[in-house]
Amino acid sequence: MLFSRCLIPTVKETPQDAVNASHTFLTRGGFIRRVGAGTYDFLPLGFRVLKKVEGIVRAEMNRAGALEILMPALLPAEYFKETGRWDTFGDNLFRLKDRKGSEMHLGPTHEEIVTDIARREIRSYREMPLNLYQIQTKFRDEPRPRGGLLRCREFIMKDAYSFDVSEEAAKASYERMRVAYCNVYDRMGLTYRMVAADSGAMGGSTSAEFQVLAESGEDAIVACDTCDYAANVEVAVVRPPAASTDDATVMEPERVSTPGKKTIEEVSTFLKVKPEAMLKSLVYVGGETTALVVIRGDHEVNEIAVARALGVADVFLATDVDVKKATGTDIGFVGPIGFKGRVLVDRAASQVKNGIAGGNERDVHVKNVNRGRDYDGDVGDFRLAGTGDGCAKCGKGTLTSYKGIEAGHIFILGTHYTAKMGATFLAEDQQKQPIIMGCYGIGVSRLVAATVEQHHDQDGMRWPMSIAPYQVHICTIGKDDAVNQAAKALYDDLEARGIEVLWDDRDERPGVKFKDADLLGIPLRVTIGGKGLAAGNFELKPRSEPDPKKAEMVPVADAARILEERVKSALAGKK
Amino acid sequence: MLFSRCLIPTVKETPQDAVNASHTFLTRGGFIRRVGAGTYDFLPLGFRVLKKVEGIVRAEMNRAGALEILMPALLPAEYFKETGRWDTFGDNLFRLKDRKGSEMHLGPTHEEIVTDIARREIRSYREMPLNLYQIQTKFRDEPRPRGGLLRCREFIMKDAYSFDVSEEAAKASYERMRVAYCNVYDRMGLTYRMVAADSGAMGGSTSAEFQVLAESGEDAIVACDTCDYAANVEVAVVRPPAASTDDATVMEPERVSTPGKKTIEEVSTFLKVKPEAMLKSLVYVGGETTALVVIRGDHEVNEIAVARALGVADVFLATDVDVKKATGTDIGFVGPIGFKGRVLVDRAASQVKNGIAGGNERDVHVKNVNRGRDYDGDVGDFRLAGTGDGCAKCGKGTLTSYKGIEAGHIFILGTHYTAKMGATFLAEDQQKQPIIMGCYGIGVSRLVAATVEQHHDQDGMRWPMSIAPYQVHICTIGKDDAVNQAAKALYDDLEARGIEVLWDDRDERPGVKFKDADLLGIPLRVTIGGKGLAAGNFELKPRSEPDPKKAEMVPVADAARILEERVKSALAGKK
Repeated sequence: MLFSRCLIPTVKETPQDAVNASHTFLTRGGFIRRVGAGTYDFLPLGFRVLKKVEGIVRAEMNRAGALEILMPALLPAEYFKETGRWDTFGDNLFRLKDRKGSEMHLGPTHEEIVTDIARREIRSYREMPLNLYQIQTKFRDEPRPRGGLLRCREFIMKDAYSFDVSEEAAKASYERMRVAYCNVYDRMGLTYRMVAADSGAMGGSTSAEFQVLAESGEDAIVACDTCDYAANVEVAVVRPPAASTDDATVMEPERVSTPGKKTIEEVSTFLKVKPEAMLKSLVYVGGETTALVVIRGDHEVNEIAVARALGVADVFLATDVDVKKATGTDIGFVGPIGFKGRVLVDRAASQVKNGIAGGNERDVHVKNVNRGRDYDGDVGDFRLAGTGDGCAKCGKGTLTSYKGIEAGHIFILGTHYTAKMGATFLAEDQQKQPIIMGCYGIGVSRLVAATVEQHHDQDGMRWPMSIAPYQVHICTIGKDDAVNQAAKALYDDLEARGIEVLWDDRDERPGVKFKDADLLGIPLRVTIGGKGLAAGNFELKPRSEPDPKKAEMVPVADAARILEERVKSALAGKK
Repeated sequence: MLFSRCLIPTVKETPQDAVNASHTFLTRGGFIRRVGAGTYDFLPLGFRVLKKVEGIVRAEMNRAGALEILMPALLPAEYFKETGRWDTFGDNLFRLKDRKGSEMHLGPTHEEIVTDIARREIRSYREMPLNLYQIQTKFRDEPRPRGGLLRCREFIMKDAYSFDVSEEAAKASYERMRVAYCNVYDRMGLTYRMVAADSGAMGGSTSAEFQVLAESGEDAIVACDTCDYAANVEVAVVRPPAASTDDATVMEPERVSTPGKKTIEEVSTFLKVKPEAMLKSLVYVGGETTALVVIRGDHEVNEIAVARALGVADVFLATDVDVKKATGTDIGFVGPIGFKGRVLVDRAASQVKNGIAGGNERDVHVKNVNRGRDYDGDVGDFRLAGTGDGCAKCGKGTLTSYKGIEAGHIFILGTHYTAKMGATFLAEDQQKQPIIMGCYGIGVSRLVAATVEQHHDQDGMRWPMSIAPYQVHICTIGKDDAVNQAAKALYDDLEARGIEVLWDDRDERPGVKFKDADLLGIPLRVTIGGKGLAAGNFELKPRSEPDPKKAEMVPVADAARILEERVKSALAGKK
């Protein structure tokens, strides 16, 4: 492809709303353009990367025996109504009415539609295992679309659905998908962790997320330094702290004045104590219940654990008004002493001796608060795991926190959908049974961004060979006929070898071409200039090499062969 | 692929709403399943065909120098509002509001969105010609979705958009697309005509449709038997009839009683005259105007021509009430004599001597009606062309009518969108000019159906090799180990040669397997049974061969090679 004949509108400006590398570089490199909130054009280079990711996902799905199909994106409401998700999906669902007034919506995920296929077409145990997948545009009305392709309202997803005769067979299907997912990320050259995760709105029992590690990720995960345990902090289990050996004398409570000091940081500085000696008390509302959650000052609440303890789907931090009603005081001065209602005490907080808590009165805190004497509640794990926590799995290791981008999620759903929708089969014993289902998602367009988050430097993107928009980037310097002829010969030779080449044939200064080459991030750059050519050489520089002096001279006659070898060995390394 | 491991739910029943072969066979063959009005699942075989059509379209677009991109399907209202199509698209547009109440819609076509790319990214004449295309799911709220994949509310379209510096350059882009379109249909083995067409809601000047000829088509086209003229009847121009040489005496008008005789057929039978001696008078409403259109009894009104004559976008047949108001009588007895308002007289009708027209009174017609004496109006071409009309282009040939399925439409749009949206460029003389645009659509999912309409018999589909879901269909007869081993060996050999094979390994009777093979329509069927195998043979039968006795015996050792040759030569024939 000639640069001058392609549409590669590189720009110097970072988009105003860009907060991460992929949004910045994909836009600056002319890979994507914003159309509306959370919707983007894929321009030619972006589209090529997207198709390559799709190709890897498709190949691994096919290899795992899944069958590709395509379901509609525009759906009658009746299917989601059957399972109740028409209501539970809430504002995340794009809803509309057709010209006849029928209720419809755009598909955010397709469990109901594929279960409808299963209930119509699967009759017998002989027809399973069956795994149907599609690579499709999905729609979710995200409250806060952000990060370019990381969180969109329209995005491309690979969603697969397995159908099995038993839990055991479903586990085998799940395992095949786990392997396929690892293959996908490996082939893309990504560093990732498979972590235990919450099954959330999907229903079902077992589930795992694939997290691409990146500082810009919005998910927090912890991994053990000793065993293979890794989990989203929302569900991470930590080793219970050893029974307290703190034999400090339990002292009498003492009310102290803390004028205007509301946050843990303000109070701990003011009273000269460490945050871990403080008891943070937060009022949560879940359904009809208002509860107080007590955690250590240095910890964060795990809202999923709180919701589970209260037996509700979601909990929310109480508003100022609700806090006042529940405690008689303002946020910042709430404490557990005398709280009327359910109290959840995190295990670590429960062991704090002579802690400091809010005094339930403006500008007052209480010193020497001890559970049992001054307050009590249900003790459990109500905080997010973090660096330094002990690993509950191996009992020895220590957990470390990472940030991750969720790039895949696999579930065993059991009969959650099939039972509701009457998708049954005749088992070998001629008994009707509900089908056991699993579902497996990969964010295809999100993976484009996640790759950039992991593969970039200050100058631009650094594409892994397997999904690079082109494999070789030729920059010609000057307008010399000999240079153009040499470039043309190399270009033709590489194309004949099946290598994908972008030739920057523009009438631009070398500095502009090199800056764009760094920005676009094609793995191998070949520079062809008059001086090198006179010496019989092209200059070869991998994008991954940061030192500009480390460019390599390759003889003109060998260049195509050497480039082909580099491309093929890079691709083979990721298989 | 093993039949038993795939999802190929063949059924005997024709869908209730099926009116054509593709809807019937694609459903019966388990290629598609209905999800809602005008929306379908593509099951594995249907999906494979769809992807092959996509592949051919993509290859020809790339070959023509077009660049693939992907625009969003979910669009903010602002773009269509800029050009006025937010209003003019009417009920055909699926509209919705997001969680913040912003107006959005689903993309039925993407002129505005791609023009937005052009106005943002194209600066100079040097950046053109540029042709951007996408293969994407489109949404239109069709009033009457029907015919399976022929008219859907969600469908897959390839839409390309060219950007040029001048009308002349735009014509060259248009010509490249014309050639690419012909290549697509040729490679798919379709019989089609490129015809002159109405530019309709798209705007612009030049346009042509590609019509796949099929009895079930909903478009009528005419083609000349002498020259290359072909056109949609909506825009077809016919040779004006020679000035009348009918020297019949003009007779006095005579009112006759025609009790209850309303239609042309009823009146012509009752009065024993031919339909061509009758004047059919129809009341049309277009905008504020009510007009009477007079055509010969054997002709049909061309509503596009009527609308054009009245200077409005659309015209509609008047309702019973409006007819009564305009003529004082009921539908069936309307005539031109004394009509107060605009009268449009088709050229052929204007030459009718002593014709029969409605009497503008219930149960009365008038004989011996002559234009000039009894009524008058604007004479022009207001009827649809049909078989037997003279060709206006060559002046010699005769037109014949065909039914067609619109499978592509190419337009030169000029500055219709670019002027409205301010998409300009700096010309060589440094003057700002609007970009000249073209647009080019192919109904990808519709082509799947159109192919079946042309390629089927009473037993099922007959796929052209280039888009067949598989190329070879192996049917094994009986459960003999030797049969299974021979089949396995052939299957593996063919796969190693890159041939796509479906092996019907089910435990079913031969009759069931053959019926399904005919239904699915894979081009080459190989039957492996104990008897043939004992004689060292497989049976080979092309799906296109109707005579079951014409099956060919091929030696086991040569079978894979012969099949590979047949597949490759069939594919080469369509390149």
